[in-house]
Amino acid sequence: MTISKIAKAAGVSVPTVSKVLNGRADVAADTRSRIEELIRRHGYRRRRGPGGGRSATIDLVFHELDSAWAIEVIRGVERVARAEGLSVVLAESGGRQTPQDGWVDAVLARQSTAAILVFSDLAPRQRDRLAARGIPFVVVDPTGDPGTDIPSVGSANWNGGLAATRHLIELGHRRIAVIGGPRHVLCSRARIDGYRSALDAAGLPADPDLIRFGDFHVESGRDGGRALLRLADPPTAVFAGSDLQAMGVYEAARELGVRIPEDLSVVGYDDLPVARWVGPPLTTVRQPLTEMAEEATRMALLLARGEPPANLRLDLATDLVVRQSTTAPAPRP
Amino acid sequence: MTISKIAKAAGVSVPTVSKVLNGRADVAADTRSRIEELIRRHGYRRRRGPGGGRSATIDLVFHELDSAWAIEVIRGVERVARAEGLSVVLAESGGRQTPQDGWVDAVLARQSTAAILVFSDLAPRQRDRLAARGIPFVVVDPTGDPGTDIPSVGSANWNGGLAATRHLIELGHRRIAVIGGPRHVLCSRARIDGYRSALDAAGLPADPDLIRFGDFHVESGRDGGRALLRLADPPTAVFAGSDLQAMGVYEAARELGVRIPEDLSVVGYDDLPVARWVGPPLTTVRQPLTEMAEEATRMALLLARGEPPANLRLDLATDLVVRQSTTAPAPRP
Repeated sequence: MTISKIAKAAGVSVPTVSKVLNGRADVAADTRSRIEELIRRHGYRRRRGPGGGRSATIDLVFHELDSAWAIEVIRGVERVARAEGLSVVLAESGGRQTPQDGWVDAVLARQSTAAILVFSDLAPRQRDRLAARGIPFVVVDPTGDPGTDIPSVGSANWNGGLAATRHLIELGHRRIAVIGGPRHVLCSRARIDGYRSALDAAGLPADPDLIRFGDFHVESGRDGGRALLRLADPPTAVFAGSDLQAMGVYEAARELGVRIPEDLSVVGYDDLPVARWVGPPLTTVRQPLTEMAEEATRMALLLARGEPPANLRLDLATDLVVRQSTTAPAPRP
Repeated sequence: MTISKIAKAAGVSVPTVSKVLNGRADVAADTRSRIEELIRRHGYRRRRGPGGGRSATIDLVFHELDSAWAIEVIRGVERVARAEGLSVVLAESGGRQTPQDGWVDAVLARQSTAAILVFSDLAPRQRDRLAARGIPFVVVDPTGDPGTDIPSVGSANWNGGLAATRHLIELGHRRIAVIGGPRHVLCSRARIDGYRSALDAAGLPADPDLIRFGDFHVESGRDGGRALLRLADPPTAVFAGSDLQAMGVYEAARELGVRIPEDLSVVGYDDLPVARWVGPPLTTVRQPLTEMAEEATRMALLLARGEPPANLRLDLATDLVVRQSTTAPAPRP
């Protein structure tokens, strides 16, 4: 399907089709929809220009660019992109779970090779606009269930939650709390389900008082930690949803004079570099963020070349890394 | 100066000039030089297209993309760029102090608005190529003396070194070691000079055994820390060149059974988020990395608009943040 055939079918001029293809804003909404529908149906795919190889870009969108977590992902994308001669264009969606439409406009305008979304997703309409232009996207660490047709790379969250909790049970803990990420985020739910399964397998009840939700940041770990430590019957161990939340639990423990690990064992999630340096070094579930980003980028580039990868949904393995923040609980008085 | 006038003056065709302007590789080196010289002399500046505002980019180059340090800078550049409707293109120069020529080709090809270089610099020839195209660049945290005509944003390194060392002297320390960054890097030299000045003002000698050089990474802090702690007359305090190096000193101290701060006081540099979380929380010199990146981006955008900023070289203030890794030295036996 050529531009002129699309223009004819849509009853518009060639420059109008061209504007839509280039992501320009000055096209009436209904005209744009009609053209995009035709493009989608007939599978127009713009040829990349001869200089395209050199100025080619891959877009990387973060939900938030505010922690050491992000650099692990950026490094993976940048490494694979650079090997392919692509530049990485970085954006932040300002905490929203989908990027703004202006981002899609910009991706179309620069004819990006592919897009990588981290901890976020595209609205159906945004997906359609990229698909119409043959720009594939891959989600890293999906927050929801992205649907079987959406390529994604995650990690074995349920197994991570299971391993963390099992470790605490094996040390002798019986009152084990969990501080998860946001309630609606599936990766966090999977970890909490792993936690429940470990308790269940050991014949331990899951006390609803000991299950808290947060947002993966330090402050929510601190708030959850304070609330848990002030319970009449506080936990002897906390499994935090992220290393940053674990840092918040450390802070709450310091404030309240609770010693880690003597009075409270703490397990984190992610294994950011910081986990090795804190006092005491943090036992945590390693999530291979850089490898996940590399895998997602490779997958996106295969899709961009029209070579669908063998698997569109990958979960990489997680491992428990035992350090010094976990030990047997103190004997109860 | 128009393209056709340049072509005429250079005795080449218009498409050849166009290729040079677009950073294409398929132009003979001497032809390219001749054309670039003409462009430089006559100040040709390409008009940005009407869609330029939306697809416009700003390039950000890192020496290395491997620590929490980088995310602080990325966040500042992204914040200012987004407010201006610009996308950030990220690159890493793979540890080299200047980006590869392919990077300059790509910047020219995508007609980037400006470039920000972090802890690195451009070769004179690379500077000329950007200048010929009216693409300004600003250096963040320059490693060398970038010359009075190179816009840069740094921080008050000498004052930071002075404040860190003075704090240790005021606590009563007399044997104070320093672990700097690479010998050739000026920002590190300035900190060490601040250290020397503080010692000098207090009438203390600077023992060459107590001055070490590293590379700002954890491992070099660990190696320097080990060597210092194994001296016959070890220091009672260490001023590390970065928070990551301070983490290395923590590691060395743990290995050797040296307690922080009882046996050894440690001061870091940067005030990354990790400084608050380590055990004990790290006394450090705060370097406002995000603000430095924001300032550099604003400066680059002013230059791109042809409005030279009031100052082409800025140093933002550094502050000492006192936490729990520093205390008075133990009385000597």
